[in-house]
Amino acid sequence: MGRIYGRSASDLAAEAIRLAVTDAGLRMSDVDGLLTSSGVTRGIGMDLAKYANLRGLRLQSDINAFGATAGAMVQYAAMAISTGMAQVVACVFADVPLRGGTAAADAYSSTPARGITGKLRAAAGVSSVAARYALATRRHMIRFGTSSEQLGAVAVAARKWAALNPRAQFRDPITIDDHQSSRWIAEPLHLLDCCLVSNGAIAVIVTSTERARDLAQPLVRLLGWAQAHPGEQNEQGSEFGIRSGAAESGPAALKMAGVVLSEVDVAEIYDCFTFTTLLTLEDYGFCAKGEGGAFVASGALEPGSAIPINTGGGQLSSYYMWGMTPLSEAIMQTRGQTGERQSARHDIVLVSGNGGVLDHHSTLVLGSAAT
Amino acid sequence: MGRIYGRSASDLAAEAIRLAVTDAGLRMSDVDGLLTSSGVTRGIGMDLAKYANLRGLRLQSDINAFGATAGAMVQYAAMAISTGMAQVVACVFADVPLRGGTAAADAYSSTPARGITGKLRAAAGVSSVAARYALATRRHMIRFGTSSEQLGAVAVAARKWAALNPRAQFRDPITIDDHQSSRWIAEPLHLLDCCLVSNGAIAVIVTSTERARDLAQPLVRLLGWAQAHPGEQNEQGSEFGIRSGAAESGPAALKMAGVVLSEVDVAEIYDCFTFTTLLTLEDYGFCAKGEGGAFVASGALEPGSAIPINTGGGQLSSYYMWGMTPLSEAIMQTRGQTGERQSARHDIVLVSGNGGVLDHHSTLVLGSAAT
Repeated sequence: MGRIYGRSASDLAAEAIRLAVTDAGLRMSDVDGLLTSSGVTRGIGMDLAKYANLRGLRLQSDINAFGATAGAMVQYAAMAISTGMAQVVACVFADVPLRGGTAAADAYSSTPARGITGKLRAAAGVSSVAARYALATRRHMIRFGTSSEQLGAVAVAARKWAALNPRAQFRDPITIDDHQSSRWIAEPLHLLDCCLVSNGAIAVIVTSTERARDLAQPLVRLLGWAQAHPGEQNEQGSEFGIRSGAAESGPAALKMAGVVLSEVDVAEIYDCFTFTTLLTLEDYGFCAKGEGGAFVASGALEPGSAIPINTGGGQLSSYYMWGMTPLSEAIMQTRGQTGERQSARHDIVLVSGNGGVLDHHSTLVLGSAAT
Repeated sequence: MGRIYGRSASDLAAEAIRLAVTDAGLRMSDVDGLLTSSGVTRGIGMDLAKYANLRGLRLQSDINAFGATAGAMVQYAAMAISTGMAQVVACVFADVPLRGGTAAADAYSSTPARGITGKLRAAAGVSSVAARYALATRRHMIRFGTSSEQLGAVAVAARKWAALNPRAQFRDPITIDDHQSSRWIAEPLHLLDCCLVSNGAIAVIVTSTERARDLAQPLVRLLGWAQAHPGEQNEQGSEFGIRSGAAESGPAALKMAGVVLSEVDVAEIYDCFTFTTLLTLEDYGFCAKGEGGAFVASGALEPGSAIPINTGGGQLSSYYMWGMTPLSEAIMQTRGQTGERQSARHDIVLVSGNGGVLDHHSTLVLGSAAT
């Protein structure tokens, strides 16, 4: 992941699958399921099977649920494996928005105006995802007194974690002052409130618990999962900026896993913007509704705090691979393989995915072999 | 479905969902899952939930597996319902390739050249899906002596069934001579070997068997399903044009259903081209490999034959809604609601989906309440 130029998304995705298969102690011929996510700009699709030379698949689809896709793919794979459709499913995301020499892709700066709502938004100048998140953030600020400096604490903590992650794109420390003085992207969101842009690919291999026990890596169990798509998260919605699908998918996934929030050892929260992290933490119940600002400003997200959160530096500092960023870090934490950023306790790991400007949410609960 | 102009795919899809929900005796508020297929040209996507005013969803994704998508969506919905993720899942396809006054959409006439293989194809003039199916068809002709007149029998039979389907776009009878004299699209495929092009939407509601028993329509059970993606179905593949994924997904789905092919009462076969039907019938085992030409020329596909096949007129004569064309007809046959084209026996109904030029296949086995 990162500033990798001159390679297609399919090329990166095929390499990610090969690396993940090898990492698991499997062979490419063991893979009989493939779920792809065509991504934001110029991603991958059904032709990846040929590109990666995967044959005889029993499950294949290209899936899109925006930032909730990674979780949705793993859920789909798990159900297919339980049903007997497939044995070993590769879930892969790849995208190459960055061109050499440019800081960010045009594709991220605006979205096409679709439908009446989209055209009204465009007419009002709300032409980017950042602009829509800015509205959500402003609403939270007005309702609860959340401040830009508090959001800055999310960015500063992410950068501290990224300093411990050799794969992170941005590892130099930043301060609240840096955050405050970074340029506006869409007020009240500064540049340092926004995720970065990355080229790359991540693949996750899902198989049965029985088979995974005999493979090369420590067992990572999928204990629970849920999705929530409230459908009210637009500018007219009563809960827009106040409450997201995480408030439904988090408790549902924990219930399926048979654990409560206080048992969670590590949380990897989807962070396309600092505000997304703050809101999800409230919705999951890490703090009371409206107290997210004070919670993050207390240092709760920094290395050394009670519950390690976004331990890889997240999408704000490490790399932007949609929901695969929190998911891959969660898997490595559950395995106990993240080096100096490793959490001592890592038996129950919570993973969030969020998309469509707070409208689509997935939660996974991972468990170590000890669970 | 058909020549419906001036409405967006989302608009048609939302209406299809409302009609299907009403048909089932449910309310829109009962729907807690939505699987969409963004289609070939200007289809639908994740924003359909807002467009259709669906809220509080627990499952939502946009899915693409080409012509295998309809089956894949129903399989996904069934697994999600079994797992408890959702209770009532709407699976919907919509597309509006037709513009008023034009006979077919440009989008169908050529596909963009992607990757090395795509660019080599383009350089060789193989720039359309029809051209690639033409190669597959030619190979079957050379290997097995299959003739264009035999393919014509598939088209003639489809039109006879379409005459019994008030929703069909083309209902006027055609002859083998009409087929033979219709212009080349990509030799050896005539115009009448090719599916038509339709605007429209189809929605299918999936719920638990327990809940379905109390709803407004006769129970249609999902007895078995499978996918197969051989990954060899390209011009270099040893089985290209000879054998498709149906040869794997058919037996696997029947096995899951606990039935054998001779127990199938009705078959609805994906028919983007006449050749697709012929090859799938061989792969499913309705006739021996290589004998598909003689089988279809025997009148086996015509109304009144032993096993009713493509009873709605299929994509060749009725409407092109990807895998939703055979699926919707199969559901109506299983219910016993297709009027003068209804099969007297309709307890076990086989449904095929095929995409990516014979590279992606799904099979469903439906059962009536009597099964």
